Amino acid sequence: MDYLLIMDILGTVAFAISGVLTAMKKRMDAFGILIIAFVTAVGGGTLRDILIGFPVTWMRNLTYVHVILITTIVAALFRSKLVYLRRSLFLFDTIGIGLYTVVGIQKAISIGLPPAICVAIGTMSACFGGVIRDILCNEIPVIFRKEIYATACILGGVSYFVLVKLGLSQNITFIISGVVVILARLLAVIFKLQLPSVYGKEEESNEAP
Amino acid sequence: MDYLLIMDILGTVAFAISGVLTAMKKRMDAFGILIIAFVTAVGGGTLRDILIGFPVTWMRNLTYVHVILITTIVAALFRSKLVYLRRSLFLFDTIGIGLYTVVGIQKAISIGLPPAICVAIGTMSACFGGVIRDILCNEIPVIFRKEIYATACILGGVSYFVLVKLGLSQNITFIISGVVVILARLLAVIFKLQLPSVYGKEEESNEAP
Amino acid sequence: MDYLLIMDILGTVAFAISGVLTAMKKRMDAFGILIIAFVTAVGGGTLRDILIGFPVTWMRNLTYVHVILITTIVAALFRSKLVYLRRSLFLFDTIGIGLYTVVGIQKAISIGLPPAICVAIGTMSACFGGVIRDILCNEIPVIFRKEIYATACILGGVSYFVLVKLGLSQNITFIISGVVVILARLLAVIFKLQLPSVYGKEEESNEAP
Repeated sequence: MDYLLIMDILGTVAFAISGVLTAMKKRMDAFGILIIAFVTAVGGGTLRDILIGFPVTWMRNLTYVHVILITTIVAALFRSKLVYLRRSLFLFDTIGIGLYTVVGIQKAISIGLPPAICVAIGTMSACFGGVIRDILCNEIPVIFRKEIYATACILGGVSYFVLVKLGLSQNITFIISGVVVILARLLAVIFKLQLPSVYGKEEESNEAP
Repeated sequence: MDYLLIMDILGTVAFAISGVLTAMKKRMDAFGILIIAFVTAVGGGTLRDILIGFPVTWMRNLTYVHVILITTIVAALFRSKLVYLRRSLFLFDTIGIGLYTVVGIQKAISIGLPPAICVAIGTMSACFGGVIRDILCNEIPVIFRKEIYATACILGGVSYFVLVKLGLSQNITFIISGVVVILARLLAVIFKLQLPSVYGKEEESNEAP
Repeated sequence: MDYLLIMDILGTVAFAISGVLTAMKKRMDAFGILIIAFVTAVGGGTLRDILIGFPVTWMRNLTYVHVILITTIVAALFRSKLVYLRRSLFLFDTIGIGLYTVVGIQKAISIGLPPAICVAIGTMSACFGGVIRDILCNEIPVIFRKEIYATACILGGVSYFVLVKLGLSQNITFIISGVVVILARLLAVIFKLQLPSVYGKEEESNEAP
């Protein structure tokens, strides 16, 4: 349980920092930056809880609020140094989506939703904080345009149900499918994989940069 | 009941395709296109269910997920052919909003909401999938700017309560008010009706195209 | 209770008008203007109710619907005269956020949420109607960029819990902390206060107007 808490906090920190950076790029004021950090960190889980009818997690547990508040202040103060942490932040973020995907799936299973929906809920938990961040910053959500991100979550989600079918224990399933998400994303970034484009070559060249 | 299911699926197909087309115009990747198709098709109903405190429909019924998945794949593959289906898609879309408006109204009635709110909920069920689609694609929602679309839903909604007042059976009321929505939209498009502008002539000419 | 109702209506009117003005600036049609007015007026409270699991207020009480409908029609008809009401509207708006902040806090307290979360819920009740308005109009929410607005709500929220700690009665606490919100905003506007920028001087000068 301790490991989970640490992973959860690392993920929250990484998500909050990505919010801070996006908000600062839009020249928001201190309140705007805090809200965007907050929404990026808890948005996916909030949407998940509302959709499946659970009480919203962060409202009952001040840990998230404190972590996000401290992260935002530290990140805003030392923003020029964040570039040196790029790799660590990417790693934390990846750990975060791995964890959130599997936690989301388990919550959805607990109310008896069908597997395909559970995978969707897990993916949403992991990805929609970033989607809401981008909408509030008046951008087309970045995960709709590039990067294997949601796809990694879906892969991990599918492997969760494969492992359950194979009869593995819940703990093992939890760990392996979380690791699948993390590995899929790491490999995708290392080998610069992207989702196949549905657009032709010619169209591609007309694209604005 | 069978007819309703077919209409529901036709509507879902039309909504999903409109999502696919909007997402492709924004050059989203495969995941982005799928999400936009999904949100366009189920977004209005999801908002309705959350507002009135019902369990979210598509999470309990995989039909929608399958229809949207297949539609998205087929539409993305044969996108250059979609132009030949323009009329059919418009018709399906119109059938969809007729059905969703009335279903939304009946759900709202079932928890005892006042008529004006029921009409609002029905209109929202029919129209807000498109609103969320446009927000995710970073556009001002098209239904706020032109076309008799929501207005057709409101007309159908009002006629629902008029028919109930006249003492007609629920089935007849359901059918007639759905048909009112469909006819209002068809006639509006045929005769190129628009909502009266609240802006003066002079202002109009300054408008960017 | 009568005073509260009057304040609530004044706030709703001011919020609806700010929605009408934003929607008209975007050249929306009559339906678009109505929806934006509606969302601006009830959006914050709706989000609050969904997050804390309460039934959505405006769906059970037609007063809001009527006030917003009438306000929208009158504001759209006499829009050229609204400039003369600027001060009154600003005052109503400020009364509105004062009231909504404290009402939001009390609702959150009633389900046993911790103080920090209650302040967040109160601030959200007051501010997120405007956030949703700006998102629907494809703008970065104005409260994330300038003006002491949310900050006034947070100040009022904090003073609420300070007053409770001091042992004051609920009524007195309600009034004083609402007044804190109102005064904070009035003073901020009078003295042109802004949140401290986290950006350097040099960066500032590069900003697009």
